This record gives sequence, C-alpha cells and structure tokens, in this order.
Amino acid sequence: MDYQKILDEIAIEIAALPNDGEVANYIPELAKANPDKFGMHLTTVRNEHFAVGDAEDKFSIQSISKVFSLAMAFSLMGEKLWKRVGVEPSGNPFNSIVQLEYENGIPRNPFVNAGALVVVDVLLSELQNPEEDLFAFVRSLTGSTDITYNAKVAQSEKETGYLNSAFVNMMKAKGNIVNDTEEILDFYYKQCSIEMNCRELASAFLHFGENGLAYSHAGFSLTKSQVKRLNALMLSCGFYDESGQFAFKVGLAGKSGVGGGIAAVFPEEFAVAVWSPKLNKKGNSVRAFNSLELLTTKTESSIF
Amino acid sequence: MDYQKILDEIAIEIAALPNDGEVANYIPELAKANPDKFGMHLTTVRNEHFAVGDAEDKFSIQSISKVFSLAMAFSLMGEKLWKRVGVEPSGNPFNSIVQLEYENGIPRNPFVNAGALVVVDVLLSELQNPEEDLFAFVRSLTGSTDITYNAKVAQSEKETGYLNSAFVNMMKAKGNIVNDTEEILDFYYKQCSIEMNCRELASAFLHFGENGLAYSHAGFSLTKSQVKRLNALMLSCGFYDESGQFAFKVGLAGKSGVGGGIAAVFPEEFAVAVWSPKLNKKGNSVRAFNSLELLTTKTESSIF
Amino acid sequence: MDYQKILDEIAIEIAALPNDGEVANYIPELAKANPDKFGMHLTTVRNEHFAVGDAEDKFSIQSISKVFSLAMAFSLMGEKLWKRVGVEPSGNPFNSIVQLEYENGIPRNPFVNAGALVVVDVLLSELQNPEEDLFAFVRSLTGSTDITYNAKVAQSEKETGYLNSAFVNMMKAKGNIVNDTEEILDFYYKQCSIEMNCRELASAFLHFGENGLAYSHAGFSLTKSQVKRLNALMLSCGFYDESGQFAFKVGLAGKSGVGGGIAAVFPEEFAVAVWSPKLNKKGNSVRAFNSLELLTTKTESSIF
Amino acid sequence: MDYQKILDEIAIEIAALPNDGEVANYIPELAKANPDKFGMHLTTVRNEHFAVGDAEDKFSIQSISKVFSLAMAFSLMGEKLWKRVGVEPSGNPFNSIVQLEYENGIPRNPFVNAGALVVVDVLLSELQNPEEDLFAFVRSLTGSTDITYNAKVAQSEKETGYLNSAFVNMMKAKGNIVNDTEEILDFYYKQCSIEMNCRELASAFLHFGENGLAYSHAGFSLTKSQVKRLNALMLSCGFYDESGQFAFKVGLAGKSGVGGGIAAVFPEEFAVAVWSPKLNKKGNSVRAFNSLELLTTKTESSIF
Repeated sequence: MDYQKILDEIAIEIAALPNDGEVANYIPELAKANPDKFGMHLTTVRNEHFAVGDAEDKFSIQSISKVFSLAMAFSLMGEKLWKRVGVEPSGNPFNSIVQLEYENGIPRNPFVNAGALVVVDVLLSELQNPEEDLFAFVRSLTGSTDITYNAKVAQSEKETGYLNSAFVNMMKAKGNIVNDTEEILDFYYKQCSIEMNCRELASAFLHFGENGLAYSHAGFSLTKSQVKRLNALMLSCGFYDESGQFAFKVGLAGKSGVGGGIAAVFPEEFAVAVWSPKLNKKGNSVRAFNSLELLTTKTESSIF
Repeated sequence: MDYQKILDEIAIEIAALPNDGEVANYIPELAKANPDKFGMHLTTVRNEHFAVGDAEDKFSIQSISKVFSLAMAFSLMGEKLWKRVGVEPSGNPFNSIVQLEYENGIPRNPFVNAGALVVVDVLLSELQNPEEDLFAFVRSLTGSTDITYNAKVAQSEKETGYLNSAFVNMMKAKGNIVNDTEEILDFYYKQCSIEMNCRELASAFLHFGENGLAYSHAGFSLTKSQVKRLNALMLSCGFYDESGQFAFKVGLAGKSGVGGGIAAVFPEEFAVAVWSPKLNKKGNSVRAFNSLELLTTKTESSIF
Repeated sequence: MDYQKILDEIAIEIAALPNDGEVANYIPELAKANPDKFGMHLTTVRNEHFAVGDAEDKFSIQSISKVFSLAMAFSLMGEKLWKRVGVEPSGNPFNSIVQLEYENGIPRNPFVNAGALVVVDVLLSELQNPEEDLFAFVRSLTGSTDITYNAKVAQSEKETGYLNSAFVNMMKAKGNIVNDTEEILDFYYKQCSIEMNCRELASAFLHFGENGLAYSHAGFSLTKSQVKRLNALMLSCGFYDESGQFAFKVGLAGKSGVGGGIAAVFPEEFAVAVWSPKLNKKGNSVRAFNSLELLTTKTESSIF
Repeated sequence: MDYQKILDEIAIEIAALPNDGEVANYIPELAKANPDKFGMHLTTVRNEHFAVGDAEDKFSIQSISKVFSLAMAFSLMGEKLWKRVGVEPSGNPFNSIVQLEYENGIPRNPFVNAGALVVVDVLLSELQNPEEDLFAFVRSLTGSTDITYNAKVAQSEKETGYLNSAFVNMMKAKGNIVNDTEEILDFYYKQCSIEMNCRELASAFLHFGENGLAYSHAGFSLTKSQVKRLNALMLSCGFYDESGQFAFKVGLAGKSGVGGGIAAVFPEEFAVAVWSPKLNKKGNSVRAFNSLELLTTKTESSIF
C-alpha cells in the first residue's frame, strides 16, 4: 500500500473543502491555535513512517492523554479498575453530570471527563511519583525524551475548569474519589496539556495496534488481551457522543482531543495521528475526522 | 383560641406515637443531636406566646436560614433577583444537580441548595460586611442579641460538603456565580449552622405573617407584597420534594431544616416553630411535620 | 369591596396592553378561537355576581375539567386515591413523560395529563355510568342544566393526541392503568372539551371556596378538609410548570386550561373565572393570568 | 483452526457453570422456553459448518430480527435513513423513552425498540408487500424456505406491548412516524417472533461478515461499505446498555435478542450463533455471552 500517496491525496482533498468548525474557545490558551494548521502522520508495524503537512508541529493533545493515563491505571489495577469506572458509552456529551448523579458517582467510561478524573485518582493512590511516572511512560511510548506539558495551558484550564470541579466534587460526595480534589484537578490539567506532534502520537498509539505493551514502558505493561480491551473502549467511547458516528464512518479504534488531534489504530497494520484545530459541535476536529474517513475508504482498512 | 391547651394536646399525642425517622447523619456534628428532643413555640400577632417541651433549647436551623438570607437579597435586589434564581418547585430532591445542568445554571428556586448559594453570591456582591449584616438581621428579627452560629457544625459541613461544591462550580461554569466559590461556601455553612430555639424562630417568622418587614431590620425591609411572595415561595418550595405534601396536609407557608426544625406562618394570626431531630427520607422532621398537621386540624387554620 | 368597579378597571387596563401570546394550535379545532375575546366573572360567597366582557360566551374549559373529575374520584376513593397519583409539583411541563418512566408510572399529581388519565381510570372502575355522572356533577355544581362537551373538539383532540396515548400506554406498562386505554382516552377527550362560560365556571368553583361540597352534588361530596386539600393541589400544581409563578404573583388556588380559561378561589370570599384565548409558552392564558394578578393586587386578596 | 474442538470445549465449560439468569418473563409465551437449552453453530466464509448442542432447535429470534429489517431499510433508503434514526449508542436500556422525548422523537439508533419501530415505518412506506418481502429476504439469507413467525408469540407480545405503544405514539406526536401506529406494531411483533435455529442464524449473519450482500437477496442488496456500517452499528449498539461490555469482552459485531439468542460476525472469517434462554439483567443471554467470550479468547478472533 502506497501510504505516502494516499496521505498526499487526502491533504489535497481536505484543503479543497471549506475549513468548517471552531477552534476550542472555552480554554483561552487553546483559542490561540492557528486554525489553518493540518498535519497527518502514519506509522506501520513494519516501522515505516509517512507524513504530510504540519506533522512535526507540537499541539495540545488534551483528551487523547486519557488513553495514556488509562493504560497506566489498567496496568496497575487490572480488572479491578472497572469497579470504579464503567466500560459503556455514555450517550451524553463529555461534560454531562446527569448520569453521574443517577449512577452513584461511577462514570460510564474512562473517556468522559469524570471517568478520566477517577483514573487520575487511581494513579495518585497507587504511585509514589505519579507525575514523573506519567511523563516517563509517554516518553517511553513515543521515544521522544523531551515531551512535557504546557504550563500556560494547564493554568488556563484550571482557571476555567468549574465543570470538572463539579464532577470531582460530585464523585467525592458519592464516595468514588479518595484523594484531595485539588490535587486530582492539578494532575488532570497537566496531563491534558501535554504537547506532542503527529509523529509522536502515532508512534505512541502504534503500541496499541501491535502486540500490546508487551515489554514494559517505564514499568507499565499490558497483555495483548488488555490492549484489545483498550481498543474496544476507544471504539465505543473515544469520540464523546459522536463515537457511534466514528465507528460507523471511519471504523477504527481512536481517541480525539479538543486541541484538534485524533489518534487511531488499525490493529496489526498501522497507527495514525491527524491534527487540525477547528472542531465540530461535538468537540471533534472536523478535518481530522474527515481525513480518517478518507484514509479508511482509500485503504479499505476498517476493522469491520 | 386556647393555643396552650392545643400545644399541650399535640405534645401528648406526638409522644404516644413511635419516634420514627433518622437524625441527619451526613453531617457528623448534627448526628450527635438527642433524638428524643421535642419543642414547639407559637406566637400570635397579638404578641402572645405559647410553648411546650424543649422550646428553649438551641438547635441548628440549617435550611430554615435560607429564608433569612433570601429576605435580605430580595430587599437588596427587588424583582431583579429572579433573573438569577427561579420561583418554581423543583420536582426534585434538594440535592439534585440535574436541572441545574439542563437549565443553564439557574436554580429552580432559592430553597434548593443551589438557589441558596446564588442568594449568598448576591449578598457577597451587594454588601460590604455580609456576615455582620446577616447576624444583625436575624438578631433584629428575633429580638435576641446573642444569636450566632456553631463553628464546629460549620466546619463539619464544609468538610463533607462536596455536593455543594459541585453545585457552585456547575453554576460558575454556567456563568451564574460571581464571587469566589470558597467564600460562598464558607458563608453558606456559617448561615446554615446558626442556632436558635423555637421561641426565637417563631418570633422571627412572625414578621412574615404580620405586616411584612414593614419597619427596617438592620437596614433590610420588605413591602407587604414582597412578604406575601416569600410566603408563596415557602408554600411551593419550602419542603424539598415534599412541598406538595406539606401544602396538602398542613396548609401553611413554612420552611424545614435538616436540624429537625420547621417554622411556619398563618398570615395575620400566628407564627410557629417546632423541633424534633429525627427526619423522614425527604429530609423533613417527622414529628415537626405531624405536629403542624395536628395544629392546623385542631385550629382549622389552613390558608386554604 | 366594589368588585364591579375593579373588574371594569381590569378590563380597561388589560385592553391597553398588547394582546401577546398564541392561541393553542396543536388542537386544530381550538385554533379557531377568536383571539380578541376576553371575559371575567366573579361571584362571592354572598351570592353576588359581577362580570365584564365576554363572560357569557362558552369556551372549551380543557384542563380546568381536571378539577371536576378529581373531585369525583377523591369523593369516591378518599385518601386511597393518592396511592395511584401523587400530590407533588412535577417541575416539568404538563406533557413530560420522563418522570413517569423513572417513577414507576405514578404521575406526580392529578393535574399533569398522566395524572388526569389515572383519575379517569378510577372513574371508569368505580362508576356504572361515568360519563352521565360527570355531566350530572358539573351541571349540579354550576346550576346550568345544558352543560355538555363539543364533539368536534373531542374528535380533534383524539386525532392528534399521540402524546396522551404514549402516557396511558406507559402507565399501563408500569401497572398503573386498569381499564382499556382507548376507553380512557375517549372519556378524557370528552371531559376536556366540556364548554362553559365564565359565570358557570365561577359558580362551580365557588363550591371549592365555601364550605366544601358540603351537600352532595349528583351523589358526590367532599368534606371541608378535602376541599382544602384540593385547593392546596391547585396552588402547588394548577398551572403546569408555572405554578410557582401563579402562587408568587397571584396568590390564589386555581386551574388553567389551554382553551384560555383560568378559574380561581379566594376561600370564604369569592371565586373568579377569566377567559382570553392567547396563551404564553407555558400554556397559560396571558390576559387571564395578568387579570388575576391585577385582581389580587387591587383587592389585596392573596391567601398569603 | 479446529472450530469443532473449540465448540465442544466451550459446551463443556459452559455446562460446568451454574445456569444463572432468568428466562424473559414479560412476554408470557416466551416464558415457556426450556431454560436448559443450549446450542451453538459456527459457519466460515469457506462454507464449513460446526455445531454443538441444540443448534437445530428453533427459537424466537426477537431483537436479532432488527438487523434484518434494518438491512432492508438501509438498502431502500441509503444514507437518507439516518435522518430518521441515529447511529449513536443510547447509554440507556432498550426500553427507555427519556431520550426520545428530549431528542424530538429521533431514536438514538435502530436497535433500541423505538429505532426499530421507525425502521418498520420506513418499510411500510417503501414496500408494496412489506411482510412478504421480509420473509423472502430472511429465507434468501438463510437458504431455508420454511422460516416464519410464531403467531402465538406475536399475539402475546402485542397484548403486553404497552411500552412499544408508548414509543410509537411519542414519535408520532413528535412527527417521526408516518404510518398507522397499530399497523407498525403488528408488523413489528411479527418480525420479532420469527423463529430460526442457530444454523440458520449463523448462515444469515455470514452475509454481514463476507462481501456484503453483494448479490441481491429478494431484491435487497448492500455494498461492502454499507455492510461494514451495519457491523459498526452492531458493535456500538447491539447489546442494549451492555454494548460496551460485549465489545470489551468479546470484541465482535453482534446482536442479541430476549429469546436468548446472540448472532455475531468475525469479518472475513466466520459468523456464529448461540442460544440459551436465561438472560442477565440487561436482557442478554448469560450463556450465549459467555460462550462468545470463550470463543474469541480461544480463537484470538477479536476485531481489535
């Protein structure tokens, strides 16, 4: 398969369409992103690399980071983790508190904000140096030693993150949060404001499409079966309340972030990351979503 | 009307029934209340006083305090207040966050916790010394200069008040909170942990049954029409999601608190306060509710 | 009190305001109502009568009829009725099915559509000739022997009443409906399409403001205490999700209908009916609501 | 892969476990099913067949039939179909009406009951002889000419199907149902009471795992891309509010029915059907679910 040719075609087809959507504006620091940026990087299990556009530009990975913290918590806790957070699609936007109230503070899945906050709570309980471990883990997965978070973005998110405060307090009220709520939020905002480029993100996700995290990354490892389960979660729940659409139109396991990135996996063949800052109303990057639909159409690489 | 005879009868009839319900246990300091306490005090517009039982014992007035802070905010803001908080029954428990999310952070009424937090937000914005003013106001209403709050109870509530943190953060996220969330919560817990006895509470509420706060109390005054509106709110919304039951069975405007108190008004005739710590599942004192049903049956004093 | 002068003033003040709102259009036959009609009739416990405008025109009483069928069911069942239907405000529009699903098919109160359908179910179970009895009852209450329903309106409602079919089937699924769903709906639509004028409606409601239905009407009677409870229900729940507003601004027990009528009671003094077809977004007549606010302001007749 | 050996192992392992769950009892005719029945049939794209247990017994396929009617409607309408019904997981039980009310009568997906009723509405509008066409289609897919429905079961469902009546009426009220509600329900109950055995079901589903319905079945055909989309829908939404669990633990596209059957597809390799009547609380067959988890573990055939 000539992936480079396909990526080049996709970039041309995408550029020919109007650049619809809006840059995330509820986090002031993110609102400064250049709306015309577009990058895509695909890496195969044979260690081939293909890229187009701004694939070397760093951007805020936001909710894509939830996959990394979840991998760590799953590695630490095994199946016990699912007593604290579910594996079902929420059927609601990522920022809905309704289900949390009705379902005793157990979030539907680890990719809604509330679920990701529970995952952080687990990391804070289980690890001596959770922050250090997180960065060691993502550096090991990507092979880039300089990956870090953007302190300005983290601060910006903290200052406007009242909804996340509402979530973590609601779960604390229901008994599903152990650690101090402010510590959890601080960690969460650092995690969300990690910056990567498309190449790094694709490299990291390739581990979810290959043999599992079969060898240990910074001390964290998952079996092949556990990695398959992560993929199932990404497919069911990775795109807020547009997860069904992504499965339907793209047909890959993946995860989006409001920084405009999407990373996805076609098991035993490739991982891919796309970045374009403008989002649709569901919070997913318009061009990244469309690019991946083109990719799986052109390559016939849907998992179904 | 021989109110003393009627109060004595009520005390006997209530004592003959099993003391059902549970003392509020989600606030540890409140859980220490003696479950066998029972007091009742009625005062008329003719300045007569009648009492039975532990009517001189101080107890934590809790949500009954919402009537006082609301009276202050209504006095300060007039009808503009209702842009920040509604006047409709919530149809939900006092601690439900669902409507708040669906209705853009505007609480249904000032007696659900979220609504009372908005009222505090108004007081913090409008007053130089809101805490001082609150205590001056309740001291003026009751004629007791020593009324204060219980710092242990306030602290106990703060330590377990994650749900209220969730509310205030949700409303801040939706743009309906101006002040710092921690300052609002601190004030709110002080207000809730004010202690009064039945006599003081009845004396304070008599102002809502008489001519309005026609003369100024510590600088706060309401017209007769405004006081009628407060009474309408108490009738529609004063008893969490048991407000309909209270209107149906008792037929007075009133307000309950999880400390076991209920204060109520029969306009142009009397105000009454009852206290018994054990609560039903809706958070209202079982014996206080029953006592007031007996009172309006015996005196035929329903407003309907 | 010179009620005639007050009614004349109200008519002039109302006419000076723009005629806002919309005639109910979801029932085709009702959409034909003349939007400029306005009538008001007040009758006192001393059997005085005062009227202004189109007070002798018949109109479709719609949901106001729920008070009559409820009075019959309450007379037949006593307090047992409240096992089938609640007495709490719903906090939701009159046509919401959500609570019904969460609360096992027990409607919040008898004035939401679902509750009124349960009341009809009770009448069909308890009475040999429920339809005959209903008309005998309303004729006895009003003193008008010619009161009947409009078959065209009933038919029009039936043809568009899919939401009511949804309610009654949902409750049947939950076990709270005994009779055939089609029979219930047929009866319900006849009841809603009863036609009265303001004089007849005020005369009927005076029985709820006086001594109860102390003497039997067509075999149905209520104690004074039961009538007070009906009034409490009207105050808490009589105006869909604007009940709090009506208590707050008008301060009377009453009931509205989408035909544009409102009937209300000031206990031991008067009953009043107003009619103007244009409705606000909550389904209550704009001019009828405003007229009653003017009435209680001018007469200082709030129950609070 | 020695599928026969694997099926035999699964049957032994399943038989060693307690037979938990309950036979569907809300449909009286289904409640008569023998709880100890267990059958499994797997067929490959190479036209191999493997079976164990009661794989030749006919049972009521119930909601599995929704896949067949959906395939027909998708074939007829193409992408326009998704204006009438969504492709997102509901996050709610199959019998919840809440979302329907909030989302204007557009069901979340075609596998919740409301969505399947919309699909039937489409068939009734588009086809001259919808019933005939449905049976021709399933007979063509299975290669069995004698497939039909059980009239007793259909009747039993109709007599107790008040919830489905509520759904279809709610959607009619919201404008998303064209045909007569009774006709839709009649067709729906016939469709749900179709009877097949595991072999027939596996044969029918193989078409979703192979090349699409590339050649026409009784006049209905789907492209390979459309079949992939059906599979995505099955994975996201095929198991009521346990769809995430099924994706997570089994990792195949599939569909369950309250008759105790599950059919699933491993694209380009096999289709499989399992039947055991006892259901868990989510309405999925306990033993069928567990068997498929064993199957994908033993064969490493998850799509992820």
